[in-house]
Amino acid sequence: EILAAIETSLSDGPLKGVRAVVTSGPTHEAIDPVRYIANHSSGKQGHAIAAALARLGAEVTLVSGPVHIPDPAGVRVVRVDSAVEMLNGVRAALPADVVVCAAAVADWTVANRATEKRKKKVGAPPPVIELAPNPDILMTVSKAEGGLRPRLVVGFAAETEALLDNARDKLARKGCDWIVANDVSEGSGTFGGDANLVHVIDADGIDSWPRMGKDAVAARLAERIANVLRGL
Amino acid sequence: EILAAIETSLSDGPLKGVRAVVTSGPTHEAIDPVRYIANHSSGKQGHAIAAALARLGAEVTLVSGPVHIPDPAGVRVVRVDSAVEMLNGVRAALPADVVVCAAAVADWTVANRATEKRKKKVGAPPPVIELAPNPDILMTVSKAEGGLRPRLVVGFAAETEALLDNARDKLARKGCDWIVANDVSEGSGTFGGDANLVHVIDADGIDSWPRMGKDAVAARLAERIANVLRGL
Repeated sequence: EILAAIETSLSDGPLKGVRAVVTSGPTHEAIDPVRYIANHSSGKQGHAIAAALARLGAEVTLVSGPVHIPDPAGVRVVRVDSAVEMLNGVRAALPADVVVCAAAVADWTVANRATEKRKKKVGAPPPVIELAPNPDILMTVSKAEGGLRPRLVVGFAAETEALLDNARDKLARKGCDWIVANDVSEGSGTFGGDANLVHVIDADGIDSWPRMGKDAVAARLAERIANVLRGL
Repeated sequence: EILAAIETSLSDGPLKGVRAVVTSGPTHEAIDPVRYIANHSSGKQGHAIAAALARLGAEVTLVSGPVHIPDPAGVRVVRVDSAVEMLNGVRAALPADVVVCAAAVADWTVANRATEKRKKKVGAPPPVIELAPNPDILMTVSKAEGGLRPRLVVGFAAETEALLDNARDKLARKGCDWIVANDVSEGSGTFGGDANLVHVIDADGIDSWPRMGKDAVAARLAERIANVLRGL
């Protein structure tokens, strides 16, 4: 299937003329000039999805948080740090036919961010990091108005417990079309690893895929997206 | 000088028989299974110092936090995540003749670390991250007893303000022999960059070096270490 996709992209792919936006990687939320809150997302899955959509002929913008992997071929890459910057990057890339939110966006940013490095003070209690909600990129895109709502919005749910219940809840709450739920609990090897075990949840039910490489997950997801956008 | 150092290492270097421990990189302090507090240290300076000491003939253990740069040649690398793990790695590498603490160790760890991913709850306030002091690796090594106090302990001070005053204060408080103070304020380009502007502070005064590459800083520091350990 992957080889077929590569061959297709050399001519006219099934996603020719389709505009896609993919988010990938973690976001970093600054605590002060040297410290930040991060997460273990490597960007491998999001980058692979961007590459897979491009191979099927889509015009892809990848909005990526800080990662240490190469840019995928044939994709426009927009680099961001924080969740707010990522939302701005996605907004700037709209309108799009499909948006895949694969980034592990920080739920919260730091409310009491310091402009100078916080210092340890002898005898003083440690500082407390106060958090504030970040914008919800998936929900913002799913509920976009003025003709900016993409035909298909795909979210990811990284869960460590009650995977499917949480993913169904997220699908309803966010207003997106699909949730790709994956288990990132300790020992799953998902974060930073090369394989993924996912369930694709939509209004019709659950599509559970076997554990496979992130590239294979990306290729299968890109095909599923192509089928829906072509009305198959 | 660098070429001379490389040539020396091919025969017997001035640090032959010397045991050195170098810490490098950031530490990561877990908030929950997917989130953590990090800092912008790339590990470039610490890794370069480990390489430079090895080139002068030292037997080097590099205790490194999570970095995305290659292991230096000729060095034993111990990989750690948190400050506590880094301290344990350093302790296990003692006794040593010289310890260079170049890592950007988190001052605080997360006191209310969660074993499951913290979830956004609709209507609930964001969580607060409570911090607790991390062990002070530089001070622990500088004040080690039972014959474990290295002959030379070198600390780093990454500062964004009042660089020299803070560094002098750190030298006195920690009980180390030298502080290498470098400016990591925004715009200095130190964190993640390839150059560094440092001042070496010891009991005798301040040695201010011109801005140079991190490899050159490492070579000069290794030479300074070799001179002291040989009683020059």
